[in-house]
Amino acid sequence: MKKKDTMNNRFVMPRRVEFADTDMAGIVHFAAFFRYMETAEHELFRSLGLTLVDVERDPHLGWPRVSCGFDFIRPLRFGDDFEVHIRVANISEKSVAYEVEVVLEGKTIARGHSTSACCEVGTAVKLHSVPIPAEVRDKLQQYLIRK
Amino acid sequence: MKKKDTMNNRFVMPRRVEFADTDMAGIVHFAAFFRYMETAEHELFRSLGLTLVDVERDPHLGWPRVSCGFDFIRPLRFGDDFEVHIRVANISEKSVAYEVEVVLEGKTIARGHSTSACCEVGTAVKLHSVPIPAEVRDKLQQYLIRK
Amino acid sequence: MKKKDTMNNRFVMPRRVEFADTDMAGIVHFAAFFRYMETAEHELFRSLGLTLVDVERDPHLGWPRVSCGFDFIRPLRFGDDFEVHIRVANISEKSVAYEVEVVLEGKTIARGHSTSACCEVGTAVKLHSVPIPAEVRDKLQQYLIRK
Amino acid sequence: MKKKDTMNNRFVMPRRVEFADTDMAGIVHFAAFFRYMETAEHELFRSLGLTLVDVERDPHLGWPRVSCGFDFIRPLRFGDDFEVHIRVANISEKSVAYEVEVVLEGKTIARGHSTSACCEVGTAVKLHSVPIPAEVRDKLQQYLIRK
Repeated sequence: MKKKDTMNNRFVMPRRVEFADTDMAGIVHFAAFFRYMETAEHELFRSLGLTLVDVERDPHLGWPRVSCGFDFIRPLRFGDDFEVHIRVANISEKSVAYEVEVVLEGKTIARGHSTSACCEVGTAVKLHSVPIPAEVRDKLQQYLIRK
Repeated sequence: MKKKDTMNNRFVMPRRVEFADTDMAGIVHFAAFFRYMETAEHELFRSLGLTLVDVERDPHLGWPRVSCGFDFIRPLRFGDDFEVHIRVANISEKSVAYEVEVVLEGKTIARGHSTSACCEVGTAVKLHSVPIPAEVRDKLQQYLIRK
Repeated sequence: MKKKDTMNNRFVMPRRVEFADTDMAGIVHFAAFFRYMETAEHELFRSLGLTLVDVERDPHLGWPRVSCGFDFIRPLRFGDDFEVHIRVANISEKSVAYEVEVVLEGKTIARGHSTSACCEVGTAVKLHSVPIPAEVRDKLQQYLIRK
Repeated sequence: MKKKDTMNNRFVMPRRVEFADTDMAGIVHFAAFFRYMETAEHELFRSLGLTLVDVERDPHLGWPRVSCGFDFIRPLRFGDDFEVHIRVANISEKSVAYEVEVVLEGKTIARGHSTSACCEVGTAVKLHSVPIPAEVRDKLQQYLIRK
């Protein structure tokens, strides 16, 4: 279902707009785009044999968001079969930045960006960032944007 | 903001429909009613000096839902100032059942019910039900439906 | 991606739990099950060449929910690859009732039911039920539970 | 419930974190912040006797988002009583830009921004931007950031 476009170093996630994603303006509610982006990040990790939520580690390792945003160009509507294209824009010691493009029939619907920090998480632990494990860092190179 | 109606043993939570609650049919999406019901349960607990999510206890105590449902009578729309009326229908050894009525300008919009089991929860623990603490049991009597 | 199980007259929709579906108890939030059920209804319609939201018709035709509910048996967790099994339980003049089973690795996670009424909808029109179009009625027979 | 801080030209919306806003990391899911920001925009409009969704006008007038984003500084948790502070950053011919600060006990949790375009909307109409009505433009001055 998910495929990697090696020509462009991007991970592509197909998706269909669901009814609950819409609002009374008859289009996809803007907050749904952030869920789409997040799921694309998780699927990108999964395609590398990794997980963004390591609950086997104690304390758990997670990736809380540091910042994110979207520019919306065209509306998306119920039933639309679109794609989320995601690439790694930057890898620093403790965080990863992504660039996302939402595409419908070859047209750009929205452009997004997001940065997440590698953190120890959980209800019992104070959230704090930690260095990205070497294995994760290495594998993410595969989707790094070539400058 | 929240008030108890002593005549009827019910807890009343006022609420306004938000834009994100609507769908492309121009009315409140049905899944939003379940969030309204859940928040009313939490506010009922809070009004008794209790919490439905005890993260200080180890393992945590929570109240996963065993069953729930709604009958929808009239639509709710963006901006509507409505109320959720909630009462305790039954208290068993390990679970509590609620009855809910969503009311707009004196008219019944929807009727719901929900049963939650008192459980030890968390990512590290296998979910299982435990007896309701005596303090919780005692305080909930206040909202118990008089037969 | 979606398949029909002709032996059992059910439509089966595969799905993976997304991060945004979880709550702080570490399991899928109960309201997410209602979105799963709704999407399964839409995919069932789509498998028949039908749509639950006919915006080409004026006024629009939609299917607001009359009632719905779930019994929750086991928790569902982040990353779980589960299935929604959906069948048509009853077709009356103006409404359709569904039965749903959420299944993970052959085990029943939850059982749900839902009834929707065929209605003229829209922000400009007062919501009211209308007879189900003959084509819809005929096609839905395919998923009707054999008694 | 909502108050205007005339010293700072900001509109302040109080809010409590609900259970459904949390995720399995034990904190508020980042997408919930966008719903908080949106509701603050609607309440700001309401405080001026305006509405962001004019369904009495034909075609309807709405405010689809052109861009938005958040920087997350500290986590927000279940039950937290926080505030959304919102100000108008800029008013152009057809769009309005907002700046938002999410505050908990005097500390900044997150900073957001959003720009919405005044549009004719609806399932039957092609979305396109129109000049902001004079009344809306005049009233929004009240919350405009003083440079």
